[in-house]
Amino acid sequence: MHTIDLRNLSMLMDFYELTMSNGYFKEGISDTIVYFDMFYRKNPDGGGFAIAAGLEQIVDYITNLRFTRENIDFLRSKNIFSEGFLRYLLNFRFSGDIYAVPEGTPVFPNEPILTVKAKAIEAQLLETMILVTINHQSLIATKANRIVRAAKGRAVLEFGARRCQGYDGAIYGARAAYIGGACGTATTIADEIFGVPAVGTMAHSWVQLFGDEYKAFETYARTYPDECVLLVDTYNVLKSGIPNAIKVSKEILEPMGKRLKGIRLDSGDMAYLSTKCRQKLDEAGLVDCKITVSNSLDEYIITDLLNQGAEIDSFGVGERLVTAKSEPVFGGVYKLVAVNENGVPVPRIKISENAEKVTNPCFKQLWRLYDKSNNMAIADVLTLNDEEIDDTKPYTIFDPVHSWKRKKLTDFRARKLQVPVFIEGKCVYQLPSLEEIKKYCAEELATLWKEVKRFTNPHQYYVDLSQDLWDCKNELIEKHSMK
Amino acid sequence: MHTIDLRNLSMLMDFYELTMSNGYFKEGISDTIVYFDMFYRKNPDGGGFAIAAGLEQIVDYITNLRFTRENIDFLRSKNIFSEGFLRYLLNFRFSGDIYAVPEGTPVFPNEPILTVKAKAIEAQLLETMILVTINHQSLIATKANRIVRAAKGRAVLEFGARRCQGYDGAIYGARAAYIGGACGTATTIADEIFGVPAVGTMAHSWVQLFGDEYKAFETYARTYPDECVLLVDTYNVLKSGIPNAIKVSKEILEPMGKRLKGIRLDSGDMAYLSTKCRQKLDEAGLVDCKITVSNSLDEYIITDLLNQGAEIDSFGVGERLVTAKSEPVFGGVYKLVAVNENGVPVPRIKISENAEKVTNPCFKQLWRLYDKSNNMAIADVLTLNDEEIDDTKPYTIFDPVHSWKRKKLTDFRARKLQVPVFIEGKCVYQLPSLEEIKKYCAEELATLWKEVKRFTNPHQYYVDLSQDLWDCKNELIEKHSMK
Repeated sequence: MHTIDLRNLSMLMDFYELTMSNGYFKEGISDTIVYFDMFYRKNPDGGGFAIAAGLEQIVDYITNLRFTRENIDFLRSKNIFSEGFLRYLLNFRFSGDIYAVPEGTPVFPNEPILTVKAKAIEAQLLETMILVTINHQSLIATKANRIVRAAKGRAVLEFGARRCQGYDGAIYGARAAYIGGACGTATTIADEIFGVPAVGTMAHSWVQLFGDEYKAFETYARTYPDECVLLVDTYNVLKSGIPNAIKVSKEILEPMGKRLKGIRLDSGDMAYLSTKCRQKLDEAGLVDCKITVSNSLDEYIITDLLNQGAEIDSFGVGERLVTAKSEPVFGGVYKLVAVNENGVPVPRIKISENAEKVTNPCFKQLWRLYDKSNNMAIADVLTLNDEEIDDTKPYTIFDPVHSWKRKKLTDFRARKLQVPVFIEGKCVYQLPSLEEIKKYCAEELATLWKEVKRFTNPHQYYVDLSQDLWDCKNELIEKHSMK
Repeated sequence: MHTIDLRNLSMLMDFYELTMSNGYFKEGISDTIVYFDMFYRKNPDGGGFAIAAGLEQIVDYITNLRFTRENIDFLRSKNIFSEGFLRYLLNFRFSGDIYAVPEGTPVFPNEPILTVKAKAIEAQLLETMILVTINHQSLIATKANRIVRAAKGRAVLEFGARRCQGYDGAIYGARAAYIGGACGTATTIADEIFGVPAVGTMAHSWVQLFGDEYKAFETYARTYPDECVLLVDTYNVLKSGIPNAIKVSKEILEPMGKRLKGIRLDSGDMAYLSTKCRQKLDEAGLVDCKITVSNSLDEYIITDLLNQGAEIDSFGVGERLVTAKSEPVFGGVYKLVAVNENGVPVPRIKISENAEKVTNPCFKQLWRLYDKSNNMAIADVLTLNDEEIDDTKPYTIFDPVHSWKRKKLTDFRARKLQVPVFIEGKCVYQLPSLEEIKKYCAEELATLWKEVKRFTNPHQYYVDLSQDLWDCKNELIEKHSMK
């Protein structure tokens, strides 16, 4: 099952997509073939890369996109849309091409994560859903991976449903976190739909309901002897929680031949408490009892805890993962890069008062060049769509801003990162399973140098333009600035 | 229409709700009547209050909550739930009581926004959805109101769908922003479902598609002569965008007897450009042409722009509103406060290593006291549920931490803030319309002193405990700390 969205989300679009589409239709230019790139400009949290996610939901959306009679009646009530346009919507089917980088691919600023080649009206109508889907899931996959890297091999569990920004924040957030390296979620529905392993044991309310902490632990141990993880901070961790947990292990679990699987800390000084708990558990012979901590964690706090020698086996990470609290926006945009004239794509550019908002024009290809000697990624290169990078010959890359910085590559492998997803409206892409995406993501991350992956001042990975693309861009800038 | 959620969200819950519920069931305590409060601890962005929102979606959810055979089969596959429990879920109907403050009410830390009195198993199963719903919508309503206050009477439009955290972030975010004072949204579906007015005109792609800016503007003006708002920053605002906009007004609109309704700026130095644009438009006689700006706005940037004398008539606010970027988490919690023993609620408390995490025990009432002379809110008071505040007599309030700080009130009006929403499983609350909620919110905000509403170091509004509640809480703390 790929989706729970029985919802009709066809009206989840910016209203201007409709006013523009109606205008294209009225003007007789709605069938003009155009090219849009979806890309982002800045890595979240000052990081060195992002992880692309959300493509599966885009495929589901586009495959099922229809405008119902109710949608049409609603639009008609606005009194600005032509009947011809409304009739067009009623018969709408996407008929264009979409190319995209596979989910789980590490990506960099200004690279087309997804490219649409379609009739102007179709490409315009898809904008909002493409953006919200990829922006959201890429944001969370990227953040989750930061937290996973900070945990240095310890398990990271996503616990944030209750503080998400809406239901989809929980559902697709759990999916994206899993792609980025989390190994489970507290959100049950993400297990039911996507197979993200759901985990969970008890809240403070369990302990409070029994009134007596020992009675609460003992009942839990009898109910779940194989999966007994006890929350030890309802009253006092060291005076009450840990002694009761040890007592339950000795009196209930061990006589059944079971072990206390773990304890969880959800408040207090985690560095201090975790080491004290570890010591007391070890003294009681519970050396195999794992310590999980939760409570407003993120990559910075986890790094700090581990630097202090905290004794933690796994991290339950909630709101700061699933809202990407430190930078909760992935600023992906969707920009027109070319328009067909007489069957040939003619480049378009958006100049801006903000220099970094000037777009890369043209229908393009995105290449990743790997060093053949160690399989590490050297650079990405944007070329015109019909250019080829022949990796049997030397290839020179250069910095698009400081173009005198040049480097000649030999012994490299060139890979086209975008794959065809829709061709003439038909999905031609075999969607990988979530496990495959997660595995692919980990493999591709292994091709990035650790300098690109560090949290502070990461190395800026090269995203270069081919000479032909660079020339085309600069001609367009010159043309517009001469006006 | 109240909801688009044909989705079955019954599995949108933390897995531990299910492990605990199964435990309550097995232990024969699932029918014990318990009391949970949903409250938050800290105002977002260092503000003086929050705005409660999301109740309508809670009502929809609880009214329709069912566990399907597919849900049950999924749970059975986990091999930890008893068949009796799974059978119970299949026949689940909520049978308890819910009290809540109406949507749009300004609320303060540690106040029960919503209280559940229900069988332990039912109250537990609702936790995640109550939290995610109220946390999300309250976060956005509160943020929107901050931005609306900064705009000082100018229109604020919510433009953020493309950078939301998932589809519900856009849909319910637009609803919550409207409650908080935004006057429209770009998200079409929020108009279709909730009647939040949808607005929008053109993107840069419209201008780029035509290649020629004048041609793009002219076409738009002919298509929408009554609603002509032109985006002027695709190439160069002052050299190209504004001259072309003025030309279109003179050559296309004015001969039709129409006026150029507005221009929009989406990049560059807004303070400089907006004053320059205003000047050029005025010189051309377009004094009624409005200036809208967008591009990463929030309450701080809007305040700054207005302080610089920017000439702006309305603000399109995107990602920073609809993700509440500066503080994207509303930290609401759901805590057990009492358990019935022999038909009488016996208080429960959660002590914590973090002092601010100690809960207010007991089944309670929440009161707001208004000064009769000017209808301004004086203080909120939490009492035991069966206490009454008689506003015909003087009443003394005191600070719950510094309890020697006391104040005797006379000439005040006492209002119970929570209203019954469900009684014995039946919805007894007439849901107000969204317009009514928005109006009520504005009226209640008018009862807050401006010192409570300022952005920096707001006055801390009093949320006091009655003497009886204070005594009860301190007895419980003492009891637990003696252990």
